Amino acid sequence: MTRENNISKAVISRLPLYYRALCRLAVDGKTRVSSSELASMLGGTASQVRQDLNCFGGFGQQGMGYDIDRLKSEIRDILGLDKIKTAVIIGAGNLGRAIANKLTNDELNFIPIGIFDSDPVFSSLSVKGLPIMQDDELPAFCEKFKPDIAVLCIPDDKAPELTDNLVMLGIRNFWNFTGFDIKKAYPFTNSENVYLTDSLITLSYLIKNS
Amino acid sequence: MTRENNISKAVISRLPLYYRALCRLAVDGKTRVSSSELASMLGGTASQVRQDLNCFGGFGQQGMGYDIDRLKSEIRDILGLDKIKTAVIIGAGNLGRAIANKLTNDELNFIPIGIFDSDPVFSSLSVKGLPIMQDDELPAFCEKFKPDIAVLCIPDDKAPELTDNLVMLGIRNFWNFTGFDIKKAYPFTNSENVYLTDSLITLSYLIKNS
Repeated sequence: MTRENNISKAVISRLPLYYRALCRLAVDGKTRVSSSELASMLGGTASQVRQDLNCFGGFGQQGMGYDIDRLKSEIRDILGLDKIKTAVIIGAGNLGRAIANKLTNDELNFIPIGIFDSDPVFSSLSVKGLPIMQDDELPAFCEKFKPDIAVLCIPDDKAPELTDNLVMLGIRNFWNFTGFDIKKAYPFTNSENVYLTDSLITLSYLIKNS
Repeated sequence: MTRENNISKAVISRLPLYYRALCRLAVDGKTRVSSSELASMLGGTASQVRQDLNCFGGFGQQGMGYDIDRLKSEIRDILGLDKIKTAVIIGAGNLGRAIANKLTNDELNFIPIGIFDSDPVFSSLSVKGLPIMQDDELPAFCEKFKPDIAVLCIPDDKAPELTDNLVMLGIRNFWNFTGFDIKKAYPFTNSENVYLTDSLITLSYLIKNS
């Protein structure tokens, strides 16, 4: 069992927040940060910050705070951010193109290597220098380049069949913008879901109850 | 205090899942569903389903299950889905256009009524029949149409200034695709955040630890 497996899910879910806060501080030219500063940035308590960061051997010193570079680098390591992760984007509509931009702009080492669509209307176009390919080119492409993840930017009703193809082609990691429950259908895969419909429903509830 | 205020946050966070499951069942022509069927669709236990639905006076009958239409309608009411909510989309890039489609396609009664961008390159274009307007047209537009929500589909660095404008113009509800913490800056607003960077970071962690 590696050290990471001992970190609770609750702490893991807060690591992206810590990571983004540390990036902002680094951009501002800061080199050290106290647990209470981090807490006020993230809306928690200094004691929770200390507890969280202790989980992976936090480097805070009494009265000195944390070394931002060191903490950032430790969190990057735990989150696997330094490893390059190649991605195919399935769906070249507005969402697929927005995601291609997102993947390219962030410093998280996700690299889009192919964009696919079933609609031939896209076939002579490119996004971020990548030509848009037809879905039937996926098998040869996956065999050759073995992408680490597939990003699903397709309508919900197309998700089950396309996911099945992608799993058959060896893809095990999904960034899923459809309503399809990939993890339920294929428990051996990883799926991070952005359920836009659920998010809108939550917003509707917030508005009604404000 | 209305009935809704008594429902716990945990139950509220599961209501979108129940709602989507009930929609799927209705599309399949089903009229009744048992708590164990719902549990197996959602990956929980029948007892949790019964507990959740009891919170708002669930209508299950022993051995008969729940009336799908009645339950759906009750959940729609709690979530405020029957009320029309008008939206302005800020940012007419790929993400803004994808979101305009999303808002139009779903039966959640969010209606896009304006799309705005600071880039004049968009000024003769339209999305879903709505002309793309310039940011400086926002004040007159908001005064006239009083939109219920603003959807932020802009780069992170533009978010603080634009949010400030929108709050000044009377907007209190945000669907936020930037990394900016609107609720922290304006505690009297509602903000539902889709933090794409955090989602990618979580995916990176899942891949590293699989």
